[in-house]
Formats: sequence, structure tokens, C-alpha cells
Amino acid sequence: MRAVIMDAPGQIRVGDRDDPQIIDPTDAVIRITATCICGSDLWPYRGVEPADHLHMGHEYVGVVEETGSAVRAVKPGDYVVGSFVISCGECEICRSGYPSKCVHAEFVHAGIGTQAQKARIPFADGTLVATPGEPEDDLVPSLLAASDVLGTGWFAADAAEVGPGKTVAVVGDGAVGLMGVLAAKEMGAERIIAMSRHSDRQALAREFGATDIVEERGEAGVARIRELTDGLGAHSVIEAVGTQESFMQAIHSSRAGGHIGFVGVAHEGVALPMDEVFFAEVHLHGGPAPVRRYLPELIQKIWDREINPGKVFDLTLPLDEAAEGYAAMSERRATKVMLTL
Amino acid sequence: MRAVIMDAPGQIRVGDRDDPQIIDPTDAVIRITATCICGSDLWPYRGVEPADHLHMGHEYVGVVEETGSAVRAVKPGDYVVGSFVISCGECEICRSGYPSKCVHAEFVHAGIGTQAQKARIPFADGTLVATPGEPEDDLVPSLLAASDVLGTGWFAADAAEVGPGKTVAVVGDGAVGLMGVLAAKEMGAERIIAMSRHSDRQALAREFGATDIVEERGEAGVARIRELTDGLGAHSVIEAVGTQESFMQAIHSSRAGGHIGFVGVAHEGVALPMDEVFFAEVHLHGGPAPVRRYLPELIQKIWDREINPGKVFDLTLPLDEAAEGYAAMSERRATKVMLTL
Repeated sequence: MRAVIMDAPGQIRVGDRDDPQIIDPTDAVIRITATCICGSDLWPYRGVEPADHLHMGHEYVGVVEETGSAVRAVKPGDYVVGSFVISCGECEICRSGYPSKCVHAEFVHAGIGTQAQKARIPFADGTLVATPGEPEDDLVPSLLAASDVLGTGWFAADAAEVGPGKTVAVVGDGAVGLMGVLAAKEMGAERIIAMSRHSDRQALAREFGATDIVEERGEAGVARIRELTDGLGAHSVIEAVGTQESFMQAIHSSRAGGHIGFVGVAHEGVALPMDEVFFAEVHLHGGPAPVRRYLPELIQKIWDREINPGKVFDLTLPLDEAAEGYAAMSERRATKVMLTL
Repeated sequence: MRAVIMDAPGQIRVGDRDDPQIIDPTDAVIRITATCICGSDLWPYRGVEPADHLHMGHEYVGVVEETGSAVRAVKPGDYVVGSFVISCGECEICRSGYPSKCVHAEFVHAGIGTQAQKARIPFADGTLVATPGEPEDDLVPSLLAASDVLGTGWFAADAAEVGPGKTVAVVGDGAVGLMGVLAAKEMGAERIIAMSRHSDRQALAREFGATDIVEERGEAGVARIRELTDGLGAHSVIEAVGTQESFMQAIHSSRAGGHIGFVGVAHEGVALPMDEVFFAEVHLHGGPAPVRRYLPELIQKIWDREINPGKVFDLTLPLDEAAEGYAAMSERRATKVMLTL
């Protein structure tokens, strides 16, 4: 089969890999119909993380081709959306709502790779969710978004305890931050402040539900958030970047007793000064989003055309042109790139 | 009046200060009947924080002597317990349950000082809570504990979302950690693991409700917690120390999706590595405890003799012997010292 391979930082190739096979009875093999490039794929692309013949991709929708003997929840022919983390669905951690930390958890990007024609999905019952049927073409981008960026933005809003009457600040205007805006809107937030200095992303944020835009960053951005919230700060803050500056911006933008949901992947060296965090008296929760928890609800909202997260894709290319997709995202010519098969 | 003054690190004196007077109409002046020495008083005592003629003390019970014209909730003659943070009770932050971050917040230790015969308490209505009547002598230590250590341990357990069926790990066996054990027991925790290597504190922890004792610290302590929790970690962790080691011990002792309530005052330099925190996927909440939120409930439990947090005091001295009380706590000859008037 054809698959995206990163031979080295910056070197993307679409080459041949063996077709995946059922190995364990809980496996499914799916034929991928759409996949995409994630902001986190840019870390190895830019050499921030190592890259040596990596099989890329962890976001996917597709059709089940074959299932192992123990698979019950999906069957060949089903159209499915899956999470970017494999989860069994049965362990105590899965049942408590954290499939992203399943005792059998495995990151799809680490070895499986869904920027490919097919993929073997372990623990299919606990990882995949079937859609109500074959989706209309225009729903595919939104279903694909549910696999990671929508699910991640949704988790961030949930972790930030967004709800009716609340003011939400969103740090980060990438795909996940924009999905956080959409999630906050769906969860009934009264006011949604998107922090963005790019006019195209500002426009999309407004379309997704942002009521205010703050262009300033760092402490100037914090000062604007405080101005907009009677000096108190936001009830809920979504952190969707993962840098030292963005974490501090999030903490300083929250009111005392407020909630910060963080989903920007923090890299080594980002460290929270606990004397400041202590006296800020905020709540912090985040990590790899437990997307599987939200998939049934998100798929239904997409199916019912209540939300249109697929708008976050601003470039669509065939899988064979993946290299251009990586370049476009790395050079910020695109926010989020969909690859079709 | 007589009051404890720290002239310089390690130099405690009981000297004379002017009697406090009503200044604002929301003030009360109280005659203090009992006060105590806090672990945080040891920071300046040991020279970790500056000390230059400090008026010490922030925990107190006493009798209202005089009130300003705007005070409604307490009256002269009332026996009262107050929080270690002044709070108005009316601002949006107070009403949301965070009086410790009131927009008018003022730390009692910073200028007021309750290791003294009397104290002026600003925003008396929002800070003080009257007991149902004159307490029996044996209730006084417990009411005094409510002013800080009990309220702080209670907040830690609440922030850690302790509840029925949960396993709770308590990092720190000082007065606050022990109160965290008591709070966890009251909140219905199924299993309470106290991390302590001092036999007298272990005994008190067991009396307050600990079901297990872990003597190991650091990663060895974490390994024991994991052994006791099917490898998953505790649902709730109370952090009551405030050092880098104790924070990491708390994070590593929590299960994915678990809750950490932190109340150990973190000093400069303590910093959480966010790459680790991200993948731990825990909830974090803490800071100066909003004791005033809990005082009505805690006073009632003490009044009804449901709890006996006053047992945490293992040395009682007259105010005039405060210097010996500081020395005893600093040298770990006492866990918590009560000063009587």
C-alpha cells in the first residue's frame, strides 16, 4: 500500500509499505478514506523531535475491511472514526473517562501511521466508533476533525469547565484553538475571547462563535483579557499552544477559582512556577485528549449538521502530494491540511 | 496590649503594641482567647523569608469586643472563628467560593497579627463566623484549628475531589497533612494512605482515619502507592508540603484523570515540568485555602463533636512563652503549638 514516510526531518515521501494484517483477535484493518496532517507532525518535520523513516499520521476516517474474531462493536463495511490513541475501552482508566491513558494505550502516530491507504487498529471495539451510515462527502472533513483536533478542542473546553454564563479565553489560534472556540460555543459559553493576530483565523474564530478577538500576546494580552472581565480574568481558559509563554498567558488570564484546560503539547523545558500558580488559585487539567469519550456525541452532532468543524481544513490534497501539505503547514500557508485517498 | 513580635529571624519577643481600634465601619475588634503558631511562621523564623519586627500570627478564636457601624453578622460578646485571609464576602470572587482571593483580600499575618491579646479584623461580616455560643474549654483547640490547618486540609481534600469509594494519598504529615487525612475520612474516602515516617504522626494519622501508612519517600513512596492501587495510582492526592520533591511525589502518585489538591506553600524555584504533567493527565488545584467557605460547616461538626481536629496540637503554652513554642516547632519537638491567653 501507499503510505507517507518521513525519512528524516523535512523529508516526506509517499512510498510502499506492506498491507496491514489482523494480528490480535481484537484488531480491525480499515481502508482509510481521509487523513490529515497534525501540528504535532511538524515537530519531527522541523527536527525538534527525531525522524528516521517514521510512518506518519494519527487522524483518520475509513471503512472497516476485516475484523479479528473478538471484535463486536464494528464490522466489515462500517464507516468509522477513531481516536489518535488506541484504547481497550474496558480497563478502569478507560471506564473512568480517560481512554487516552488506557492501560493498553498506544499512540497511533508511534508505529501505526494513518497517512496511508490502510491501517491496523488494535482494540477496535475500544478505539473506533461507527457512523450511522456512509457519510455524505461534505461531512467527511468534519468526521476527520473529530478524530483529533475537534476532540482535543472539545476536551480542552470540558477540562476548562466551560458552560452557560461563562467567559472563555482561548490561547492559540491553530486548528485546536479554533476547535476550542467551537466547543465553547456548543457548551453554551456567554463570551468567547479568541487570542489571534491572523485575520483569516480571526474570521474563522468568529464563525465558530468567538465574540471578542484579542490580538495582543503575553502580558499585554492578559491585560486585555482583564479589561474585558472587570479585572477578574476569564472563568475558563483554553491553552492550545504548549509553550512557556502560552501557559503563563493562560494562568494569568484566569480568574481565581477559574479553570484552565491545556492541550498544547508541552515540550521539555516548559515549567510552571508553582509559587505563582499557588497564589493564582486556578484549576489545571489537560493532556492527551480522551477523544474516544466524546466521539459518539461529536459524530452525532456532525451527522445532524449542528457543527461544521471541517471548515478548519483550508487545504486538501491527495495523499500522494503529502510533501506539499507538510510544507504548506510548516510555512503557515495552511492551518490544517486534509489528505484524500 | 501584649503581642508576639519577631524582631529578626529566630528572635521572638512578647512585647507591647497599641490596642487596636475600629477604623472602618466594617471592622470588628476581637479579644483573642487562643491562637497558634503555623508552619508558615517558621519561614521567617528560619530566615527563608525576611523578618524585621513582624507582628506574628494569623490563626485565632476570640470574643467580639466592638464592631463598626456597618457590621451586621457578628456583635459584641459573640465567640468567633475567623479565616487567615480577610474577605468581604460580597464580591464576585467571594461569592464564587474563593474568599481567599477576595478582591479586598488581605493576609492576617501581614500586618494584623493575631498572636496578641486583641486584633482588628477588617470586613468582619465576610471574615468571622460566630459559634453557636460560648464553647466548652475542650472545643477551643478544635475551633482554633478550623481557622487555618483544618480549613486548609479540608480544602485540599475538596480540591482533590475526595469522596466515597476513592483512594486518597496524603503527601506530608505536618498539621495540614493530618487535617487532610481527617477531612478525607469525613468525606467518605474508602482508603486513606498517609505518607509519614514519624511514629507519633503515623499514630495520629491512623486516629484521624488513615487506613495505610507509607514510610518511603520520593519515587520509592510512589512505587508503594502504585502497589497499593493496582498499579494505577490514587484517585485523589493531597499535597501538603510545597517542595519540588513533594509535588512530583503527588503527581506520580495520582492515577490518570485523578485529582491533586495542593496546599503546601510553594516557594520560589519550585517548578512543574509540564511535559510530565501533560502526559500524567491529572487535575491540579490548590492555593491559599478559602477557609471562610468551610467555616460554618466545620464549626458545626466541631460543636456536635463529630470531629476533634484539636488533637493536632501537641504543645500548649501561654502567649508569653511564644518563643519556646517557635523553638519547639522549628526543632520538630512539636507538630503544632497552641498559645493561650
